[in-house]
Amino acid sequence: MPASDFTPKEYADRLAKTRTAMATRGIDTLIVADPSNMAWLTGYDGWSFYVPQAVVLHKSGDPLWWGRTQDRPGAAQTTWMEADHLLDWPEEHVQHPDHHPYEALVAHLRDRGWTRALGVEMDNYYYSAKSHAALLDAFGQDQITDATSLVNWQRTVKSPAELAMMRKAGQLSEHMHATLRAGFRAGRPKHELVAEVQAAGVAGLPGIAGDYAAIAPIAPSGTEASASHITWNDRPLTPGEATYFEISGCYHRYHCPISRTLYLGEPPADIRRAEDAVLSAITDTFAAAKPGVTSEEVAACVYESFARAGYVKGNRTGYPIGLSYPPDWGERTISLRPGDTTPLEENMTFHLMPGLWTPDWGVAITESFVITPEGGQPLANVPREIFVVPA
Amino acid sequence: MPASDFTPKEYADRLAKTRTAMATRGIDTLIVADPSNMAWLTGYDGWSFYVPQAVVLHKSGDPLWWGRTQDRPGAAQTTWMEADHLLDWPEEHVQHPDHHPYEALVAHLRDRGWTRALGVEMDNYYYSAKSHAALLDAFGQDQITDATSLVNWQRTVKSPAELAMMRKAGQLSEHMHATLRAGFRAGRPKHELVAEVQAAGVAGLPGIAGDYAAIAPIAPSGTEASASHITWNDRPLTPGEATYFEISGCYHRYHCPISRTLYLGEPPADIRRAEDAVLSAITDTFAAAKPGVTSEEVAACVYESFARAGYVKGNRTGYPIGLSYPPDWGERTISLRPGDTTPLEENMTFHLMPGLWTPDWGVAITESFVITPEGGQPLANVPREIFVVPA
Repeated sequence: MPASDFTPKEYADRLAKTRTAMATRGIDTLIVADPSNMAWLTGYDGWSFYVPQAVVLHKSGDPLWWGRTQDRPGAAQTTWMEADHLLDWPEEHVQHPDHHPYEALVAHLRDRGWTRALGVEMDNYYYSAKSHAALLDAFGQDQITDATSLVNWQRTVKSPAELAMMRKAGQLSEHMHATLRAGFRAGRPKHELVAEVQAAGVAGLPGIAGDYAAIAPIAPSGTEASASHITWNDRPLTPGEATYFEISGCYHRYHCPISRTLYLGEPPADIRRAEDAVLSAITDTFAAAKPGVTSEEVAACVYESFARAGYVKGNRTGYPIGLSYPPDWGERTISLRPGDTTPLEENMTFHLMPGLWTPDWGVAITESFVITPEGGQPLANVPREIFVVPA
Repeated sequence: MPASDFTPKEYADRLAKTRTAMATRGIDTLIVADPSNMAWLTGYDGWSFYVPQAVVLHKSGDPLWWGRTQDRPGAAQTTWMEADHLLDWPEEHVQHPDHHPYEALVAHLRDRGWTRALGVEMDNYYYSAKSHAALLDAFGQDQITDATSLVNWQRTVKSPAELAMMRKAGQLSEHMHATLRAGFRAGRPKHELVAEVQAAGVAGLPGIAGDYAAIAPIAPSGTEASASHITWNDRPLTPGEATYFEISGCYHRYHCPISRTLYLGEPPADIRRAEDAVLSAITDTFAAAKPGVTSEEVAACVYESFARAGYVKGNRTGYPIGLSYPPDWGERTISLRPGDTTPLEENMTFHLMPGLWTPDWGVAITESFVITPEGGQPLANVPREIFVVPA
């Protein structure tokens, strides 16, 4: 996702929104370790998040990129930042038992006098307890605020340019699902089908090259699908089993996840009943999902549809999506569930997840959608019904 | 990676080794949040590591799996554990602003009286600063020891069954590189080639189905390759540019990363000189890499070969590999570099990484290998030289 995907004004707006939130929280300097947030603020892209790195945003001036020496050229290539704003930590400290890269960050912060009112993302994959301990040792608990998801919240409403990216990701998702339907037949080892579907997502469509998705294909069959995050294996597709594929196209790091359920043979009545509940849940949600409606009100459409069918849906029904890096394509802010009273806004984007997992099978039929004044609008067009192949 | 990949005795040995290390460190209860360590101890497999989960290993008794309610069926399917050892946290606390799953872990630990001498993996992607804060609040700093990499260190020497997995991953890596060489030609958009190569790794070979690798393909061309972790884009392959692919087959979560450099046209003298240095570095390393030799002694083979060619290699030259989940296929224990005096042992496995990055180009030719009394033995057989295609 090179920074040239968006205008300088869009990046300036992103910084301004983030700084407003920082000011509200009394944060002078924000240390942004979430690679999705780093990319959203600066354009930075690369599989370097397995070592410490961050964007450091002070209340004034341009942000700083900070990472491993070896990755600084990648920051120069992919961000809109000037070379003198790209800082590093010593290459020889990578995964070293006696040194930690955050010691170098402490020194960079001290050099600039940014030692008070720091914000950090305490609940993020890429900000470890050890990294936090280094900052605590240096600056003390009183100077450090938990700013988990502060930037993520600024990302909830998508710009027109971002929506265009997500619709392209949606076209990739459509292409992946068409490939899936074409290749789904009894006896086929599942890993072969996954290989085809994933290749379709990366090879993409004319003018739409695919990127790696933030989550690998989830593709359980039969009782495997009683669990919600099983990937794949080499077992042949078997008549009498429901398989669901939770997959997403990815375009310039933007996602559009879509799950569909496929069946070899004639689905039994309980699975058809679940399908009906899911399809009604989606229709009802899209009708309700207008600006000003709360997250829990929208979620109620799903719970009520399942209850009418005699099923209990015990987990949340959706979450925001957009720009993401592994291991999650969710934005980790709003949840579509009881108790979340966040009002929806136009151009927020969600993955609606009305899945149902029983001890014997699982059905997942999901949609990625955008909030509009007319209701929820899907970001891709994939036939929703269970795809049935005669066994 | 279902638990049935290994014998009960092998799992018992893994627990015993880990407990010996715990006893040495005075740890009564180890909280293992690294999904690679969780899998190594119990067989647990699933893309659920984007929410808090752990294996809890007390000094006696069977370990506990702890995770999201929705993922407990996945633990029942993939581990060797009994159902009453699978604990969970409330589904409604997923990514919740006012609750944290580690509150539930605290309660589970208190139920069992495991409130003293706890070990945690402080420097891991899947143990956040926030998770640590919950344990600190509950049990106090004095009861918590940093046990980062404690389990990882037990994984350094591979069992025969693990080596068999890695050799299968190596066959997948060979297949991926053969696919890469066959498809590498001028004008080809790179993402199309990546799609083919990745699909080859997943579709695999007869009897060897591929899994998702812990790192997406790294595949920079020309000046892009001055950075070390750039993935891919849709730019056509261009004469006069070196491209390197750092890719790995993955078999039941075991890896065998291999990088190769390809060139369209005739490589210039400086790139050929780097190639010679890299090839000598590999030959010299394999000759030296016997049990009892230290990591830094082996690494010196690489630095010396580069120095003879007039290049300075500024980063480490390798790291251990094996069972891994995103975002890293390294084990994060030993580093092949100056100052690491760890003696090598038979059946340790490494990714030897004699890459060279200049401001104008990058060359990476790497090997995954196992330590034997006869020296380093590659885990796959891929032609090492720069693959040249006339432009």
